[in-house]
Amino acid sequence: MSEPRSTHMAPGAGPGSTQTFAEGSPRVIVAGATGFAGALAAHLLWRHPRFELAAVTGRSQGGQRLDDLYPRYRVPLTIEELDLDWLSNASDMGCGIDAAVVAYPHAAAAPTVGALRERDVRVVDLSADFRLAALPTYERWYGAHPRPDLLGEAVYGLTELHREQIAAANIVANPGCYPTASVLALAPLARAGVIADVVIDAKQGISGAGRTFDETTHLSMAGENILPYNVAAHRHTPEIEEQLGLLGTALPVQFQAHLVPLDQGEMASCYVTPTRAVSAEELRELFAQAYDGEPFVEVVEEPPGVREVRETNFCRIFAAADSHTGKLLVFSAIDNLWKGTSSQAIQNLNLMFGLPETEGLL
Amino acid sequence: MSEPRSTHMAPGAGPGSTQTFAEGSPRVIVAGATGFAGALAAHLLWRHPRFELAAVTGRSQGGQRLDDLYPRYRVPLTIEELDLDWLSNASDMGCGIDAAVVAYPHAAAAPTVGALRERDVRVVDLSADFRLAALPTYERWYGAHPRPDLLGEAVYGLTELHREQIAAANIVANPGCYPTASVLALAPLARAGVIADVVIDAKQGISGAGRTFDETTHLSMAGENILPYNVAAHRHTPEIEEQLGLLGTALPVQFQAHLVPLDQGEMASCYVTPTRAVSAEELRELFAQAYDGEPFVEVVEEPPGVREVRETNFCRIFAAADSHTGKLLVFSAIDNLWKGTSSQAIQNLNLMFGLPETEGLL
Amino acid sequence: MSEPRSTHMAPGAGPGSTQTFAEGSPRVIVAGATGFAGALAAHLLWRHPRFELAAVTGRSQGGQRLDDLYPRYRVPLTIEELDLDWLSNASDMGCGIDAAVVAYPHAAAAPTVGALRERDVRVVDLSADFRLAALPTYERWYGAHPRPDLLGEAVYGLTELHREQIAAANIVANPGCYPTASVLALAPLARAGVIADVVIDAKQGISGAGRTFDETTHLSMAGENILPYNVAAHRHTPEIEEQLGLLGTALPVQFQAHLVPLDQGEMASCYVTPTRAVSAEELRELFAQAYDGEPFVEVVEEPPGVREVRETNFCRIFAAADSHTGKLLVFSAIDNLWKGTSSQAIQNLNLMFGLPETEGLL
Amino acid sequence: MSEPRSTHMAPGAGPGSTQTFAEGSPRVIVAGATGFAGALAAHLLWRHPRFELAAVTGRSQGGQRLDDLYPRYRVPLTIEELDLDWLSNASDMGCGIDAAVVAYPHAAAAPTVGALRERDVRVVDLSADFRLAALPTYERWYGAHPRPDLLGEAVYGLTELHREQIAAANIVANPGCYPTASVLALAPLARAGVIADVVIDAKQGISGAGRTFDETTHLSMAGENILPYNVAAHRHTPEIEEQLGLLGTALPVQFQAHLVPLDQGEMASCYVTPTRAVSAEELRELFAQAYDGEPFVEVVEEPPGVREVRETNFCRIFAAADSHTGKLLVFSAIDNLWKGTSSQAIQNLNLMFGLPETEGLL
Repeated sequence: MSEPRSTHMAPGAGPGSTQTFAEGSPRVIVAGATGFAGALAAHLLWRHPRFELAAVTGRSQGGQRLDDLYPRYRVPLTIEELDLDWLSNASDMGCGIDAAVVAYPHAAAAPTVGALRERDVRVVDLSADFRLAALPTYERWYGAHPRPDLLGEAVYGLTELHREQIAAANIVANPGCYPTASVLALAPLARAGVIADVVIDAKQGISGAGRTFDETTHLSMAGENILPYNVAAHRHTPEIEEQLGLLGTALPVQFQAHLVPLDQGEMASCYVTPTRAVSAEELRELFAQAYDGEPFVEVVEEPPGVREVRETNFCRIFAAADSHTGKLLVFSAIDNLWKGTSSQAIQNLNLMFGLPETEGLL
Repeated sequence: MSEPRSTHMAPGAGPGSTQTFAEGSPRVIVAGATGFAGALAAHLLWRHPRFELAAVTGRSQGGQRLDDLYPRYRVPLTIEELDLDWLSNASDMGCGIDAAVVAYPHAAAAPTVGALRERDVRVVDLSADFRLAALPTYERWYGAHPRPDLLGEAVYGLTELHREQIAAANIVANPGCYPTASVLALAPLARAGVIADVVIDAKQGISGAGRTFDETTHLSMAGENILPYNVAAHRHTPEIEEQLGLLGTALPVQFQAHLVPLDQGEMASCYVTPTRAVSAEELRELFAQAYDGEPFVEVVEEPPGVREVRETNFCRIFAAADSHTGKLLVFSAIDNLWKGTSSQAIQNLNLMFGLPETEGLL
Repeated sequence: MSEPRSTHMAPGAGPGSTQTFAEGSPRVIVAGATGFAGALAAHLLWRHPRFELAAVTGRSQGGQRLDDLYPRYRVPLTIEELDLDWLSNASDMGCGIDAAVVAYPHAAAAPTVGALRERDVRVVDLSADFRLAALPTYERWYGAHPRPDLLGEAVYGLTELHREQIAAANIVANPGCYPTASVLALAPLARAGVIADVVIDAKQGISGAGRTFDETTHLSMAGENILPYNVAAHRHTPEIEEQLGLLGTALPVQFQAHLVPLDQGEMASCYVTPTRAVSAEELRELFAQAYDGEPFVEVVEEPPGVREVRETNFCRIFAAADSHTGKLLVFSAIDNLWKGTSSQAIQNLNLMFGLPETEGLL
Repeated sequence: MSEPRSTHMAPGAGPGSTQTFAEGSPRVIVAGATGFAGALAAHLLWRHPRFELAAVTGRSQGGQRLDDLYPRYRVPLTIEELDLDWLSNASDMGCGIDAAVVAYPHAAAAPTVGALRERDVRVVDLSADFRLAALPTYERWYGAHPRPDLLGEAVYGLTELHREQIAAANIVANPGCYPTASVLALAPLARAGVIADVVIDAKQGISGAGRTFDETTHLSMAGENILPYNVAAHRHTPEIEEQLGLLGTALPVQFQAHLVPLDQGEMASCYVTPTRAVSAEELRELFAQAYDGEPFVEVVEEPPGVREVRETNFCRIFAAADSHTGKLLVFSAIDNLWKGTSSQAIQNLNLMFGLPETEGLL
C-alpha cells in the first residue's frame, strides 16, 4: 500500500490510467476486490472525483492487476494482501486510510471489519454480517457471529431509509440486493400500515451468483433457463422482515428468488394483500411522499424493465392496485451489482464523508 | 393441396425430406403455419409416425417453403392458401382432411374453425376463441365472439384434466401457455379445496411474443431485460380462473406475466394461501394422486429449471410447504411453445384419433 | 429548439436530469436521435462536461421524450423536428447551434448536412455519405450522391489517422464500425507496406443492425445463431480499401461480416499474407510506433475479448506472427456503437472544438 | 452393468423412461457420459431404435443418475464405473458389449480404447488420440501417445469422406468439431486441387468448452463477448491439414477459433485463394459432385445460420466466388455437439453395424 498521492499512474499506460480526484480526498481501499462486487466498487471509486482509491486487496490473486481480471473496469492497480500493520503505521503517520469497502463472504467479513475499526477506518461492509440487528436471527441463518460486539455500531445501509444514521456511522452494513429492491418497493406501504400479507417473487441475472464457477453460472446451463432457488429458505428473508418491522410492519414475508439468463439486473415483483382498500390515488400519494426528491428512486407510470436501470444506481418502481383481486402490486427494478451492491456502497460513502449523495454516480 | 399419398418428397431433397407414416394415417393440415406455434405443430406432425401432414397454409407468405422460413423444423412443404372449396371437394371424393390445427389469432380463428367444422374436419384450435366456456367472459376480454354458436362443441384441451372429453371432441381449444403451467400446478390443490388465495408469478421466454418484430423481441432490447407486462390485465387470468372453478375453486386469481431473455421456456411460480394447514406429506400425496402415471407431468423433488423440459411435452412440478409463512409453493416448468402450445396440440390429436397419447412426442 | 442556457431541466425530474457543462460551451444538436447511434451520441453529449446538448431531433417519434425511448441513456429532452428556419434565425441572433451529429441513413444524410453547412453548423455525419473520397466508388455501392459538391469538404473521421484534418474540418465523415476496427488493425502494416493480401473476418453484435425489427434482430431468431451476411458485397469494403490505399497499400480486401448473438461488441480478425517475412519483434515495433501514446488504442499481449472494451471508446489490438503459415494475425476489438460509431463522433467533436480528445469519454 | 434386456425401465418412472429398440440390437456403452459429448451420445443411443444403451460410465459422479445431471436428455440410467472385468466375463458369457463410445480427454482415452479392443468391443473414440495418422504430429501437439500400437487400426470418422473404411473399422476416431465443419467445407476444393492458400475463421458456442467451469464459460464473462483463442496454435490445425493432404492438398492451413455467446453452434468461414480462376458454375459443380445424395450435407444457396442446423446432424454449406478478390468463400454451419461430435459418432456407429446411416438421426 502506498503513500497518499494525487494521481495513480500505471506504468506505460495511457491517460485512462490516471485517477483524478480533488486534493485532500478521503483515501479508501477495497478489501476483496477480486469478486464482482469488490471489483465494481473499485471501479466506481477509481472514477470518483472525490475519493482516492488507495489500494485494492484480495485474499487470492495477489500480484495480479485488477484490470487484467476486469479489463472493462480499467483500474490499473495491483491486487495486494490486506496489511493491517501497514494500516496501523500509516495511520500513525497521518497518511492512513479513511475508509474501506469490505467485500468478503459473511463470517469472513466481521473479523476484518473489526480490525479495520480498531485502526479507525470507517467501513462499508458488503456482507451479511452486520445487516441484521437481532443476533439470534443472524445465528439462525448464518451460524455463530464472529464479532457480535460490533453489531451495535452498525447501521443498515439502505440509503433512502437510514440516511442520517449512515452519515454518522462507522460501520455501514450494505443491504443485500434483494432487500434493496424489495424494501424500497414496500416501504411506503409498510409505513402506512396497509400490508396484511406479501409475496415477493424476485428474479435476478447470473452475476448475482458472483465469480462462482459451477452449474448455475455456465452459459450452457444457465442460458435458456429459469431457476427458482433457495425455496422457502432464502437468507434475505429475515433482512427484509427486519426492515419492514422497523417501519411498523412486522409479518412473515414470502420471498422467493429465481435466476434468469441475463448478466446484471433484478426485478422484485411484490404482491400485497392490503389491510384495507387502497385506491390508485392513495397509492400514488404514498409513493410520491416516500420518493419525491429522492435522487435515485424513480416512481414510474409503466412497469419498468431492468434494462432501464442497467449499470446505474437507480431503482425504478411501479405500483398498481388490482381492482380484480384487491391486491396491490409493486414492481421494483435495480441493477443487482450497482444499486443492489456496489454503487449503493458508494452512495453510502458519499454520505459518510459529507459529499453530495450523487457524487460519482450520475 | 394434394392427393393422399404415403410419403412427401421435396424436389431434389435428401432422405430427411420424406415423411414416413403408417398407411391409413389421419390427414392433418396446419392452418397458420407461418407463426411460431403453427410451424412447430407442422414440424411435430411431419415427424409423427401416425399422422400425415397433408398441407400447411398461411394467410401470408404463400408460395414460400416452410423450411425456408423455419429451416430447423425441416418441413419441405410449400405454404398454401387455405382453400375451403378444395376441402369440400376432397371430402366428397373421400380424400379429404381429417383434422386441422388452426394457429390464427383470436377472432380470426373462430370463423375458420366454423368453416372447417362444416366440412367435417376436426380441429385443435390454438387461439383463445374456444377456451372460455362463459361467453360474457370472452366478450369482456376479447370483444365480440365471431361464432358463439360453436362454443358448446368445444372442449378445453388441457389434456391431463379433460382427457375423455378431448378424445371425443370435434373442437379442442388448446390452452394458453400460462394456463397450462398454472392449472397443472394448482389443480391438485384446487380439487382438494385448500386454496384460499393464490398469486401466480409467471416468467416466459421471448418466443412467447411470437413472430412479432418490435421492442419486446429485438435482442438489443429484450436481452439483459426482465419485463413485467399486462399488469393486472392478462387475458390468461379468466382462463385460469374458469379451470380452477371447474375443479371447485372459484376465486379471483392474481396472475402476472414477465418476459425474460431466453428463447423457449416458462415458469409459473404459484404462492397459495391455504384454507387450512397442509403438511408436506399431504402435499406430496395430493400431487401423487393427481399425476402418478401421467406420461407428461413429472412431480420432482427439487425446483425445476425450464431448461429441463426444453423442447419436450413435459411439465415438471415442484411443491413445497413453507413453514415460516404457512403458504404452499408450487413451481411449474414447461416449454411455452411445446407443452404450452404445439406439442400439447399433438397430445390432444393423439387422443382424438385413438393413438397412444405419447405417440410422436417422446 | 430552445435558447442557450446553462442547464437543462426536465419538468419534475430529479438531479440526474440536469445537464452540467461549462459556460460558453459549444451548442450541439443530434439530428436523428431515435436510432441506436443517434441516441447514444445524445447520451454522450448530455453527460459531456464541455458540450451543451441543445436539441435532439427525429424524423419520427417527434414529441416523445428521448428517455422514454432509451431510458438508460437518461436524456430528458423531447424529440423535435429539425427546424432549419429556426437554425437560421438563431444563428443570426447569435444563439445558434455550433455543431450537429447527423445520424440519418445514407442518401438522407447528405442534404441535411448541406443545409446545416449553409447555416454554418459544423457536422459529424454518421452515414456513409461522406466517407468515400472517390465519387464513382460511392455511386457503385450506394447509388447517386445527393450532394457530391460537398465531398471535398469532408474529412474521414478515423481519429487516430486523420487527427489534424479533423480538428479543422467542417464535415467529418464518421467511419463505419467495421472500417474503424479493421483499419486500426491494419494501418501499421499498411503503412509499412507489408500487406500482400488480407482477409478480414468480422463479427458483430445485434445492435449493429440498429433499431430494425425483423428476423435478424428477433431474439428467438438471432439468439443461438451465427450468420454471415452480405457475402462478397459489404459496403464497408471500399471504405477499408480507400483508407488502406491512403496509407500506401492499394489492394482488394476480402472483408466478411457475421452477426453473433450479443448486443454490443465487434471483433475484426485480420489475416495478412505479408510481402516479406515480418518478425514478432518488428511486428511489435510497428504497432508500438503507431499507437504508443494513443489515448484510445491499446495494443495488448493476449487476444482481447470484445467485452473488455464494452461501452468504451477503446480499441484493443493484438498482433501475432504465425510461424507455421507465415501470416500475420491482427485481432481488433471495439464496441460497435461506441468507438465504432457514437463515441468516436464525440472524440472527433472534441478535436473540432479544441477540447482534450478524451473529454467526456473516460 | 446389466444383463441384456429389451427395455430399460427406471424405477417409478413414466413411459418416457423406457428404451424401445429392436430385438437383437447391438449393445453399446458410453464411457465418460458425464461430459457434454458423452451425455449427448447417451441420449442419442437411448432414443435410437436399433441400439441398446447398455450402460453409461463415468470417471466421476458414479452413482448419480444421468438424467439428474442432464434432465433434458432423459436417460434414466445410473452412472457406473467402467468395469473391464465385467466386460470380459460378459463377453465370455455371450452377453457382452458390442461397442463403446469413449468420451475421455486425449491421453486418457487411448488406454481405455486399448482395453476395450482387447475385449472385442468396437469403439468410436471422441478424443484426439486416434485422429492423426502421423505419430510425430500427434506427439508435437499432444505429447507422448499412450498406445501408438493401435494407430494403424483407427479410421478417421468424418463419415462423408471415409464411409467404407468406417463401416469395417474397429476403432473410429471421431473428428474434432472444427475439422468436421472445415474439412466438409474444403474437401471439394481440395480434391480438385484448386486451393493455393486458405484461412479458416471459426466461431463456436460455449458448449464447445464442455463441462468446464471457469472464466470462459461463466455467463457473466462469456456473455456479451467474442473471444479469439489458441491464436496460431489450435490443435485442430494438424487434423485439418492431414485430411486435406489425403485429398491431395498438402499445405499449411491458417485456422483460428473464436468463442461467441451461444450454447450450441459452429461456423467455419473459409477463405480460399485458388490456384486458378474458378467460376461460380464450376464451384457449384464441385460441391454438387461432392455432396449430392449425401444425407447430412446440404449445399444451400444463401449463407446458412448455425441455428438452421441446431440439434441436428446436418452440415449446411454455402460456397461463393468473389469476383472482386478472386477468392473462393465457403461457409459451413454445424452444431458442434451434434455433427461436430456426438451425432456424428452415432452416424459412424450406424455404418459400423450395417444400419442405415440416418437411423436415429432424423
